Amino acid sequence: MNITPPDPGSASWKQKAYRIIFESDTRAGRAFDVLLLGAIMVSVLAVMLESVRPIDARYGPLLRAVEWFMTGLFIIEYLMRLLVVRRPLAYALSWLGIIDFLAIVPTLASLLSVGSRNLIVIRTLRLLRVFRIFKLGKFVGEGEFILTALKASRFKILVFLTAVLTLVVVIGTLMYVVEGGQNGFTSIPKSIYWAIVTLTTVGYGDISPVTVLGQTLASVLMILGYAIIAVPTGIVSAQMATPASPATPAFKQVICHVCQATEHKSEAQYCWRCGEKL
Amino acid sequence: MNITPPDPGSASWKQKAYRIIFESDTRAGRAFDVLLLGAIMVSVLAVMLESVRPIDARYGPLLRAVEWFMTGLFIIEYLMRLLVVRRPLAYALSWLGIIDFLAIVPTLASLLSVGSRNLIVIRTLRLLRVFRIFKLGKFVGEGEFILTALKASRFKILVFLTAVLTLVVVIGTLMYVVEGGQNGFTSIPKSIYWAIVTLTTVGYGDISPVTVLGQTLASVLMILGYAIIAVPTGIVSAQMATPASPATPAFKQVICHVCQATEHKSEAQYCWRCGEKL
Amino acid sequence: MNITPPDPGSASWKQKAYRIIFESDTRAGRAFDVLLLGAIMVSVLAVMLESVRPIDARYGPLLRAVEWFMTGLFIIEYLMRLLVVRRPLAYALSWLGIIDFLAIVPTLASLLSVGSRNLIVIRTLRLLRVFRIFKLGKFVGEGEFILTALKASRFKILVFLTAVLTLVVVIGTLMYVVEGGQNGFTSIPKSIYWAIVTLTTVGYGDISPVTVLGQTLASVLMILGYAIIAVPTGIVSAQMATPASPATPAFKQVICHVCQATEHKSEAQYCWRCGEKL
Amino acid sequence: MNITPPDPGSASWKQKAYRIIFESDTRAGRAFDVLLLGAIMVSVLAVMLESVRPIDARYGPLLRAVEWFMTGLFIIEYLMRLLVVRRPLAYALSWLGIIDFLAIVPTLASLLSVGSRNLIVIRTLRLLRVFRIFKLGKFVGEGEFILTALKASRFKILVFLTAVLTLVVVIGTLMYVVEGGQNGFTSIPKSIYWAIVTLTTVGYGDISPVTVLGQTLASVLMILGYAIIAVPTGIVSAQMATPASPATPAFKQVICHVCQATEHKSEAQYCWRCGEKL
Repeated sequence: MNITPPDPGSASWKQKAYRIIFESDTRAGRAFDVLLLGAIMVSVLAVMLESVRPIDARYGPLLRAVEWFMTGLFIIEYLMRLLVVRRPLAYALSWLGIIDFLAIVPTLASLLSVGSRNLIVIRTLRLLRVFRIFKLGKFVGEGEFILTALKASRFKILVFLTAVLTLVVVIGTLMYVVEGGQNGFTSIPKSIYWAIVTLTTVGYGDISPVTVLGQTLASVLMILGYAIIAVPTGIVSAQMATPASPATPAFKQVICHVCQATEHKSEAQYCWRCGEKL
Repeated sequence: MNITPPDPGSASWKQKAYRIIFESDTRAGRAFDVLLLGAIMVSVLAVMLESVRPIDARYGPLLRAVEWFMTGLFIIEYLMRLLVVRRPLAYALSWLGIIDFLAIVPTLASLLSVGSRNLIVIRTLRLLRVFRIFKLGKFVGEGEFILTALKASRFKILVFLTAVLTLVVVIGTLMYVVEGGQNGFTSIPKSIYWAIVTLTTVGYGDISPVTVLGQTLASVLMILGYAIIAVPTGIVSAQMATPASPATPAFKQVICHVCQATEHKSEAQYCWRCGEKL
Repeated sequence: MNITPPDPGSASWKQKAYRIIFESDTRAGRAFDVLLLGAIMVSVLAVMLESVRPIDARYGPLLRAVEWFMTGLFIIEYLMRLLVVRRPLAYALSWLGIIDFLAIVPTLASLLSVGSRNLIVIRTLRLLRVFRIFKLGKFVGEGEFILTALKASRFKILVFLTAVLTLVVVIGTLMYVVEGGQNGFTSIPKSIYWAIVTLTTVGYGDISPVTVLGQTLASVLMILGYAIIAVPTGIVSAQMATPASPATPAFKQVICHVCQATEHKSEAQYCWRCGEKL
Repeated sequence: MNITPPDPGSASWKQKAYRIIFESDTRAGRAFDVLLLGAIMVSVLAVMLESVRPIDARYGPLLRAVEWFMTGLFIIEYLMRLLVVRRPLAYALSWLGIIDFLAIVPTLASLLSVGSRNLIVIRTLRLLRVFRIFKLGKFVGEGEFILTALKASRFKILVFLTAVLTLVVVIGTLMYVVEGGQNGFTSIPKSIYWAIVTLTTVGYGDISPVTVLGQTLASVLMILGYAIIAVPTGIVSAQMATPASPATPAFKQVICHVCQATEHKSEAQYCWRCGEKL
């Protein structure tokens, strides 16, 4: 993370606050993280419940109060973060900084216009702040492990996805022709949508083939989808099973001229068997 | 397991009974386990069939008789277990002890009030007793192998599940906005439910997108769900493929007394850095 | 396979026929296998098409003729097999022998009574004969590889399936209570059926939860189903990644008393470094 | 790829064009590839949108203009390719050459007859040209890695698919008998279609069992489908986890001239069996 701690010469309250807000190696820092997690959860839950009409009808004002209270907290927190880091702009423009900002923007925006519905999405984006918690001890390595494996597999997965998309477009079009634009296969994009639903084994059943040829083609697609899931799975499994450090040659290709011993550490200067200079 | 065998100085019938009830290395012990397995199956089956109206109408009294008979057996068994262990309270409060107790409580409770339906769930919980059987020879290691792998992967899986839940909340909300609260996407929680149904490739089809944008978004979610199943799979595969005992250290635990170099080959007699005799 | 070749002293035509029918290392043997494969396919196809009413109405007599012709071939083949093996009874009672016999029985049985529908299932069982083909060269090792991995994992998979079944019974019952016997959850067995449909990510949608609590519970089950698929996958992957020969200790625990060299092959009698007797 | 560069003695513009069109190690070559990718996307998108009635009604002429423009480009490109390779016929008959040709044929064919719908499928086949892009740097190795793993696993996967197909035919037929030709199980082929939908965990729900026995059988099939997905996944994972170059032989290729023993440690100087100097 590119978050810079405050200047060592700065006020001591700043340094203390930085440790609490940004770090989690102190008791207060961990408590802050847990509280933040709770606040995020409660505020996202409030947004979600507000969309349920019967609940909104009864608890609407309460939910909006919770929303405003939480936003208030997030504003204070955001200002605190800006205050204690050494380079506030760098923080504000970092990924985490933008997410922190997005957590307060929609509620504020609703003051101006009468809250557009679309802002709800941005409101739930504050859930992304949960990932802040993963700086907590044990999770750092684990999250990185997954990301590293996915990163190392990204080209393989991209090739796989291209193959899947091509397959889905070709079979979708074929299906459009086979089912003759009937039975829900009313256009090629819709048929491709069906092919995706089928290949990924989701299978809503909102569109399903009716003709014999269509069902045969669908069967082929299903078995393909069932079998080729093995490809991304295999890629990631193989990647994760590979040790992180890609076996830098641990030994150098040198033979001791006295005792002929091999397998000297790559940085060795003396033979491990007879002590002779290599 | 924290089940304590009876005091070695206690009556010999107690020790015999303990071996039969708690252990499975004798013929009688194995027979007891098999009988117990049968009793559990029959009693759970009786509970299940009682809920099918036409069967209950015809065989209701029989099913209830079976239920009572089995509960009688379980009560006797439970008392026996309490009797033969050295510390009955420790057993009664252990996981297995609680499950054994739950197996008899609902039927007894139905004597007092006229059996609340909710007790049915507790009744089927007695199925958990089946796991007692896994102390039988071959299964111990296998069950432990799976649990160990899952335990070792628990933080990785937790990170993965957090990512999945965040994704599902954000896409669910997006879908609520995109489909405009129509076509079954009547609230955010319902849209999130749909997103889970889709991402996990279950795909009931009780709710499915109708708008073009919604179907596009759904396609993305499906392909994501199809691809990221590779992550937990990869985690557990990699974990299981890793040998339980990590490679024996190839280097010996010796520090050169001259240059403080470590990581000497286990068979080294001279320091690889300074050539000093180790 | 426990199929015994004919007595070496028997008629040479028998030995020839045996090589053609049972083996596939000759040109004629391979041709026979391919013909057999074709005959099986055609006859199963005929059975399948007979069940489609419009096709049966038009081509019924033709399909039945094909069926009879193929059965005739299978009868001749079966008699030939009985004739050329050394111990006909051992063959007739072997797995492959029973499958070969089942391939001819239903058509013959239909002569006596007017062909019960249930015999159709036995008719398609002749498809199992396809696995005969896998004795062909390359496939032997591959099929065995899969079977060996599954066999080695069978206890782990059994433990996994027991856990899955317990989960499905408990959650099914819970759902029966939660949805109050409504919305298709009319009995515990039906609710368990729904739980299986959901956990395995099949998701027909013929039964799906309607209450909020039910949908929440269903979400948990779906995510569980999505995540725990990693367990059998991991088991089999790890098993298959493990080399077949389980690393018998290749070296013996002996140190040469002259040069102290270790890592002697387990059957070595002389030191590989100095040539001294071990 | 079997595309032959132009004769070294040929005109220099030819050689330049070859490098741009067929290679991607120059800036112009990469730009050409990106342009080609864009042209393919736009032209396939035009084909897809043309099938959506409301869009076709409004933008039909525009879409057809785009289609013709792109086809014009593809024709020029195709002629260029024919012109610059050393052996045009070999290119024209290669896989890539045929795909390049198919990209221009349907639009031309529509000049003669009034474009049959079936030609749409061939039109989307031009998407296969996207794979040309994968000759770009990083992707070559990755695509090959996946193909190699799939190729190495092809016999295992074939055995697996045969087992799956047999299972699906037998259970499909069983289901046809069990459900008595009712509830959508109107013929064996349809029941097999249902079995594929279920085993692959797609689960449309257009056909689903209603009888108790049918639902029980379906449950078994679902759990089977859920469990045996582990097989192809395991095969490919194990294949991909295996290093391409099998472990360098730990033994040297030397036969003892006295006792003919093999498998001498790579550093051995004396025969481990007879102690003779190697």
